[in-house]
Amino acid sequence: MAGMLQRTLRLRTAAALKPLSNHVTRSSTHVPRLSTSLCRRVHGGADVANKSPAAAPERLPFSRVNQEDLDFFKKILPGRTITDPDLLESYNVDWLKSVKGSSELLLRPQSTEEVSQILSYCNRRNLAVNTQGGNTGLVGGSVPVYDEIILSTALMNNILSFDRVSGVLTCQAGCVLENLSLYLEQRDHIMPLDLGAKGSCHIGGNVATNAGGLRLLRYGSLHGNVLGLEAVLADGQVLDCLATLRKDNTGYDLKQLFIGSEGTLGVITAVSVLCPRKPNSVNVLFLGCETFEDLLKTFQLCKGMLGEILSAFEFLDSECMRLLNSHLKLDNPISDCPFYIVIETSGSDARHDEEKLHNFLEEAMTSSLVTDGTVATEDSKTKALWSMRERVTEALTHDGFTYKYDVSLPVEKIYQLVTDMRVHLGGRAKSVVGYGHVGDGNLHLNITSPAQDPALLAAIEPFVYEWTSGCQGSISAEHGLGLKKRNYVYYSKSSRAVALMAVIKATLDPKGILNPYKTLPDHLR
Amino acid sequence: MAGMLQRTLRLRTAAALKPLSNHVTRSSTHVPRLSTSLCRRVHGGADVANKSPAAAPERLPFSRVNQEDLDFFKKILPGRTITDPDLLESYNVDWLKSVKGSSELLLRPQSTEEVSQILSYCNRRNLAVNTQGGNTGLVGGSVPVYDEIILSTALMNNILSFDRVSGVLTCQAGCVLENLSLYLEQRDHIMPLDLGAKGSCHIGGNVATNAGGLRLLRYGSLHGNVLGLEAVLADGQVLDCLATLRKDNTGYDLKQLFIGSEGTLGVITAVSVLCPRKPNSVNVLFLGCETFEDLLKTFQLCKGMLGEILSAFEFLDSECMRLLNSHLKLDNPISDCPFYIVIETSGSDARHDEEKLHNFLEEAMTSSLVTDGTVATEDSKTKALWSMRERVTEALTHDGFTYKYDVSLPVEKIYQLVTDMRVHLGGRAKSVVGYGHVGDGNLHLNITSPAQDPALLAAIEPFVYEWTSGCQGSISAEHGLGLKKRNYVYYSKSSRAVALMAVIKATLDPKGILNPYKTLPDHLR
Repeated sequence: MAGMLQRTLRLRTAAALKPLSNHVTRSSTHVPRLSTSLCRRVHGGADVANKSPAAAPERLPFSRVNQEDLDFFKKILPGRTITDPDLLESYNVDWLKSVKGSSELLLRPQSTEEVSQILSYCNRRNLAVNTQGGNTGLVGGSVPVYDEIILSTALMNNILSFDRVSGVLTCQAGCVLENLSLYLEQRDHIMPLDLGAKGSCHIGGNVATNAGGLRLLRYGSLHGNVLGLEAVLADGQVLDCLATLRKDNTGYDLKQLFIGSEGTLGVITAVSVLCPRKPNSVNVLFLGCETFEDLLKTFQLCKGMLGEILSAFEFLDSECMRLLNSHLKLDNPISDCPFYIVIETSGSDARHDEEKLHNFLEEAMTSSLVTDGTVATEDSKTKALWSMRERVTEALTHDGFTYKYDVSLPVEKIYQLVTDMRVHLGGRAKSVVGYGHVGDGNLHLNITSPAQDPALLAAIEPFVYEWTSGCQGSISAEHGLGLKKRNYVYYSKSSRAVALMAVIKATLDPKGILNPYKTLPDHLR
Repeated sequence: MAGMLQRTLRLRTAAALKPLSNHVTRSSTHVPRLSTSLCRRVHGGADVANKSPAAAPERLPFSRVNQEDLDFFKKILPGRTITDPDLLESYNVDWLKSVKGSSELLLRPQSTEEVSQILSYCNRRNLAVNTQGGNTGLVGGSVPVYDEIILSTALMNNILSFDRVSGVLTCQAGCVLENLSLYLEQRDHIMPLDLGAKGSCHIGGNVATNAGGLRLLRYGSLHGNVLGLEAVLADGQVLDCLATLRKDNTGYDLKQLFIGSEGTLGVITAVSVLCPRKPNSVNVLFLGCETFEDLLKTFQLCKGMLGEILSAFEFLDSECMRLLNSHLKLDNPISDCPFYIVIETSGSDARHDEEKLHNFLEEAMTSSLVTDGTVATEDSKTKALWSMRERVTEALTHDGFTYKYDVSLPVEKIYQLVTDMRVHLGGRAKSVVGYGHVGDGNLHLNITSPAQDPALLAAIEPFVYEWTSGCQGSISAEHGLGLKKRNYVYYSKSSRAVALMAVIKATLDPKGILNPYKTLPDHLR
């Protein structure tokens, strides 16, 4: 059995990956512009007929931008106060084209001081503000719902410092994640997070949404990796918690409040991030399993045998593979299986890592947990294998209107939700697919339909939330609540917890000008 | 040179550690009862003549416990409402015997519901409450300052669940850290934190103080490792955020507020902690360096060559060794050096780890960064080497009255503070020693004196805080602010940040009954 694996690995390492690596890049393809037909499916915040809990609430009585306001902004942001509707269009709609605002003003500050002036003014004038990073969010949190002023962090893109000894990077909020990664790689370090949207997303947005992604299993969440943070509060006050220390127990850790608060408590203007050393050796495995039980057993085996070098354990099902094949023309690098695993290892000694991998694979094949597999070490080939996992989101956009769910569950239950959903929906959906981060218990459940379909939606929700809640899961593992999921928070949080969130919101932003209609349920505004 | 190292290692591994392992246990000796002569040095909160910023402020106008209150508590906590002054004595004084309260009432709840009843009552009656875990804190945070009711978590010591698949442990707040470690070890896991006080400290106290300790370098802080938390708020409301999920982005991460808030925002009653797999192989090295520069270069080398298996990089200076020798009769396991390093590796493959260690040591010796060393693999021997680092605190208590500082700094500056302090104090102190967590940039600077010495204190403070602040360091890396350091917070935090802390305190605990006189500076009460 082990011999068979060896043959398979040799064969595939040598040949099978070539076709993939020619047309796949891991990060440059993740934010494709959608086709015109898909654009028609956009439902705006204001004109959603179906008042589902995800639909936008009524506009709150914020002031409207007048000429005097424009004059003020043009004075403090000359050339960076945008009112051209054509330029504003892409800022008003989210990547999924599922939420569309009608903002008539885009501000592009370059400094914390400018953000402070903007918020101080907006707070006095009762003008609502939507902070926007790379606009890659999936829950409608990064775009205006009505006419909120868009505050883009795109021009706040300076790296402020990097300390090679401590590995601490300090930068402005608008730095694109991939640019930070490239900067660090030249300095023998990596970012502690990586995600499909890295070519567009901003680090400030990552922190504001507590982005998870592909390296969380190894390096943990941003609550641990963000060492410092600077934010501008609703009234324009600058809160400087931009420390670069691994340990600092002097009072409450205020920065934690802003991590994951989706721009509703303050505008993050700069962050300090603890960055790991760049590993000397990276290997990626793509394996096939007959059952999800085998996949889970493989995960346990992997945790024991790969231990400290395991840096990702991801999965996709055969339905994802079908979409990758048909919509993106990506070939399956191994034989067809019901489930596929992407494992990444990274370590300091290539020979040791290879030995650990070899021993793990031998055990996984001998015990028949894994039926086929391929391994890649070279950069282009590891990227090609990763793309099988990372481009599922993109493949889905070609399959039809996508209902997206991002739940975390006890790991042994994550695929049961996909199976139950298929049974529950019968033939009503076009595709029901499951993929995600097994190592974090995080399932991405996606359901497509030829067009937006209120009846289908009514069949999915609240079923999916009730199912998740029944397992004490989270109805938003890493995507956040944004606009779309704000009213579902009670499926995962107690009413006391949500009430306390509202108290904190009211304390930090009494007029509610920061990213209104997001995160908190409507009745608490 | 490498040959020399081999000889040294063989020799020491075989012989030199034996004497140590006979009389050292890592955790059972860390909370020695102090001698009567030391007890005389206690300065109570109420009767400190010298009004330094560390001294207790005036008592706030809380109610005093009356017979009706006692009747109520006896009814809800029969047999667990303690008023016997003899029994209360040890609860009223901290481990360092540096702060002494005068509480006349100790409550020992067993459940969250009982804590809720206590706080609901105390809040109505305006009775102040001091929550106490293992009472191992070093900044006077865990004992009453005046007559606050002591709420002990000692009887809330049940493990609620452990999931072998996810590694998530859920337990009540009063579980002793070492007991949790032993429980997990039998289940092939470990706690993500370890500290000298583990035989006494409670996990609730660890979380309330955001304890750092010896494994932070590898597994990160409690802000990343605590997945869920249950707390009772000042008014008795139970805040249930006791999730066991690695990812949960449904609203603000409220539990983060309680991590490191020193019992001033709520009483932590239960926690869920992400626990790593137990490593198959653990090695401990004890090395000697001629200069601190060499020690830092060794750290850099170590990070590169040991990479993912590095789990601790600690140091002590020759003054620490002198105190270990003279007060605890611990022998130096290697030849005398100005600086000593304790390195721990833990990994999944013993042979790989040994190879990495061998390569690292060969390089460190060849380049003369390290002048002598010994290595241990067996449990008793690794514990003996660890005790050279862990028992420094204990040795200090025998040297005299100890002024303790726990700062974090850019790592290249941590020893300069010790050197500068020695010059600054001239011959005024008995001992000035430095040790700590190099990997975290965390220095423990300790200064002893035959007796409490206000003139010496005036020479140390604010010099130490100003020096630290000048390097953008933290004046309390892992110990917290408690009573003693509350008024020094501005050396590390901006006035806006501290003002926001006070707003949050006032929001969550309007009457200020929870652990008064702690964490926040006096003028903000």
